[in-house]
Parts: sequence; structure tokens; C-alpha cells
Amino acid sequence: MEISVEQHQLVANFFSLTIAAMAAATAFLWINRSQVSDRYKTAVTVSGIVTFIALYHYWRIYGSWNEAYQVVDGTLVATDKPFNDAYRYVDWLLTVPLLLVELILVMKLTASDTFKKSVRLGALAALMIVLGYPGEISDVAGTRWLWWSLSMIPFLWIVYELFIGLRSAQDAQPESAKGLIGAARYLVIGSWAFYPIVFLFPMLGLSGAAAETFVQIGYSVADIVAKAVFGILIFAIAMRKTEAEKGTVTL
Amino acid sequence: MEISVEQHQLVANFFSLTIAAMAAATAFLWINRSQVSDRYKTAVTVSGIVTFIALYHYWRIYGSWNEAYQVVDGTLVATDKPFNDAYRYVDWLLTVPLLLVELILVMKLTASDTFKKSVRLGALAALMIVLGYPGEISDVAGTRWLWWSLSMIPFLWIVYELFIGLRSAQDAQPESAKGLIGAARYLVIGSWAFYPIVFLFPMLGLSGAAAETFVQIGYSVADIVAKAVFGILIFAIAMRKTEAEKGTVTL
Repeated sequence: MEISVEQHQLVANFFSLTIAAMAAATAFLWINRSQVSDRYKTAVTVSGIVTFIALYHYWRIYGSWNEAYQVVDGTLVATDKPFNDAYRYVDWLLTVPLLLVELILVMKLTASDTFKKSVRLGALAALMIVLGYPGEISDVAGTRWLWWSLSMIPFLWIVYELFIGLRSAQDAQPESAKGLIGAARYLVIGSWAFYPIVFLFPMLGLSGAAAETFVQIGYSVADIVAKAVFGILIFAIAMRKTEAEKGTVTL
Repeated sequence: MEISVEQHQLVANFFSLTIAAMAAATAFLWINRSQVSDRYKTAVTVSGIVTFIALYHYWRIYGSWNEAYQVVDGTLVATDKPFNDAYRYVDWLLTVPLLLVELILVMKLTASDTFKKSVRLGALAALMIVLGYPGEISDVAGTRWLWWSLSMIPFLWIVYELFIGLRSAQDAQPESAKGLIGAARYLVIGSWAFYPIVFLFPMLGLSGAAAETFVQIGYSVADIVAKAVFGILIFAIAMRKTEAEKGTVTL
């Protein structure tokens, strides 16, 4: 795999874009948190924590990417510090369970349902990430397929829970927030579906510099959608519900 | 002790995970502090200060770990900057007394009891750390055993105080918070027990690269549980007590 100077720069620029987007979302969510009623403040706080954790990891990823290569006589050469892809998995291990917690918190279920659903979906999400990692670091197609398949079990379980389990809860939401909550459920599933597909690339014969470039940019864009855009959506839901409960408009 | 490139990377990834977890917990606690009543704000502030101090030290530990080794021709070689384990002890010296203060503050004892218990348990905790350090930096089994034994005296005293001394105070807490306070007491003892056990490793013949890797990862996980998870638990207790006293639900 011979990444060109231009491809390396393109990926670095996308990492930098992601840092900026995560920082902006974090600031927006934490500052605007005061706009929503007390019932939804924790959901907005957690949304900002997710983008904050991602900001930290993209800072590390950007640094590792630049340290992993250097330009010698106009050609990109790998240094003795390999690019550390594990930052992504550490990030997901922390943020993916929290993303589900955001969504559950903004639904405002009963305290006991909130706790039970957060623990179950959070644990499934963590399991999904942990099962994916042994496959990610393997070059053997059979090993990748094995861990991909195992990881898909909790993935599909979460998708099922979000579509069926939270659907009845959605019906109990105020009319003005229903559309946005439906959008949030689809956004989770749509953006999350990207990850297992990208994971499949090397097993489908897609490899080399172009594929690696696409994977890094693709993960960055998916992370922006799944965390920053999703977080703003959670804030918008919290605003709609605040308005519906207070009868006032304050966006 | 010959740590491999993979073991070094694994430990670095756990240090980075700990940085992210401590940063996330600090943000959560300081931002959500506004949710609890004035009586519990200091307990939540202090919880965030503990994770903030740990964030700082893990940042230093991560840096020291990376500077202590370099990869030469695919093999990990120690540099002339040894890994500085003292950051851990400085961290514990500050955070462990504060962890006990968090727990005492959220119990909301009388002002005089709060002061007396904070001073006594805080001093015992500091003494425990100080007595452990001469053993930690020694390679002589007899020296390690001596300081370990001395350090265990304040350790067991603290455990006794938490189980017996705070138990009667626990009975006076609102019904909804009793379970969580009990969980916090057990979490302190469960996560703290890890440290003296790890300290014993070299005296039990467990040494070498695998043991060192396990010790570093084990301390990181124990610190996340004892500080970040414990801090969230203190916040949850403060929320329950706020609700019980106000008669409202605002999580």
C-alpha cells in the first residue's frame, strides 16, 4: 500500500475538518444546554460529551497520521511510528454506548425504563465494538469474517431495539417532536450501517492506497454524522419537547 | 523486562482511554452540577476535581510512557528517559483523600461530623499513599513487604470506618438514595482492594513484560472505576437526594 503525498494530505485535511466539527458541536451543545428544561439537560450534556471525546480522539488520530509518514524527495515514506487505528476503537467504545444513552434520555421514559434500556443497549454497543476489534487488526479474511459476524449480532439487536422497542415510546411523545425523534432513530441506523460495510472492504478485494484513503475519509464523515449532527438533532428534540411542555417558543 | 512493541502500544492505548474517560467525567460532573441542590453542589464539584487531577496525571503518564521507549528496527528499546511511575503516587496523594471527602459530603452529616470525618479519613488516605511509595520504588522483597504492611494499616482503618462508621449515617438517608450510597461504599472498597494486590505482584514472583503490562492496564481500569464511575455515582446520589428533598424529578 503506497499512499501518495496528495492522498495523505487529503486524509489529514478530513481529520482536521472532523476536529473542527466536533469542537463546534461540543461548544454549541454545552452553551445552549441552558435553553432546554431541566428534564432534558442531561441528554444535551451527554451529547456534548460524545463530541468532546471524539474531538480528543481525532486530535490523537491526526497527530498519529502525520507522525506515521514523512515526505522524502517528494515521496511519502512510512516512519517507524505506525498509524494507530486503535484510537478509533477506544473512541467508539466510549461514545457509541453514550450515543444510545442520549437518545434514551431525550425520550424521557420512566426512571426505571431509562436505566434498564441504557444498561442493555449500552452493554450491547460496547460488546459490538469489542467483538469488531480482533477482526479489524487481522489481515486474514476468515478471521475478519468471523469477528465481523459476531459483532453484527449485537448490532442487529440494537437496530431491532431502536426500531421496535423505542417505537412504542415514540408514540407517547409530543406531536411536534415525533418527526425529529423518528429522524434520530433513522439517523442512528443509517450512519451506523456505514461502519460494518467499510469493515468489509478488505475482504471484498478493495485494498491499496485508494481504499485506505476512502476508509479514513468515510469513517470521519460517518463520525461527524453519527455524533455531531446526531447531537444537534438531540438538542432540537429537547427544544421541541421543552416548548411543548411549557407552551412557549424560545429557540 | 523486555516489553514488546505490541504490549507498549496496548498500554499506551489504555492510558489514552483513561485520559478520555477522565475528561468526559470531569465535563459531565462540572456541567451537570447545576442539576443538584445547593447542599450537594460541593460534593459534585469535588468529584469533578478528582477526575480533573487524574486527567492531568494520565496526560503526563501517557507522555512519559511514550518518551521512555522507541522503536528501532521493529524492536522496542528503552530511551535514556525512564518511565516515571511517581506521577501515580502524586495523583493518589491528592485524589484519594478527596474521594473520601466526596462520599462524606454527599452523606450530608452535621457540619462538625463532616469536618472531623474528612480530616481523619483524608489524613489516613494520605498516610496510606505515603507509606506505600518507599515499597513501590524498591526491588528488595523484604523492603516491599515492610512498607506494604505499614500502608495496609491505614487502608484497613479506612475500610472499617466506611463499613461501620458510615453505616449508621447511611440509615438516616432518604429511602431512594440508600441503595446507591451502599453501592458507593462497596465500590470504594472493591476498586481500592485492587491496588495493594497489584503491589504484591513482584513479591509473588509475577514480573516481566506481561506482568508490567497487566499492572499498567490494571491501575488504569481501577482508576477509571474508583474515580470516574464513582464520581458519576456520587452525582446520582446527589440527584436522588435533591429529588427526595424537593419532591420533584429532574434527572
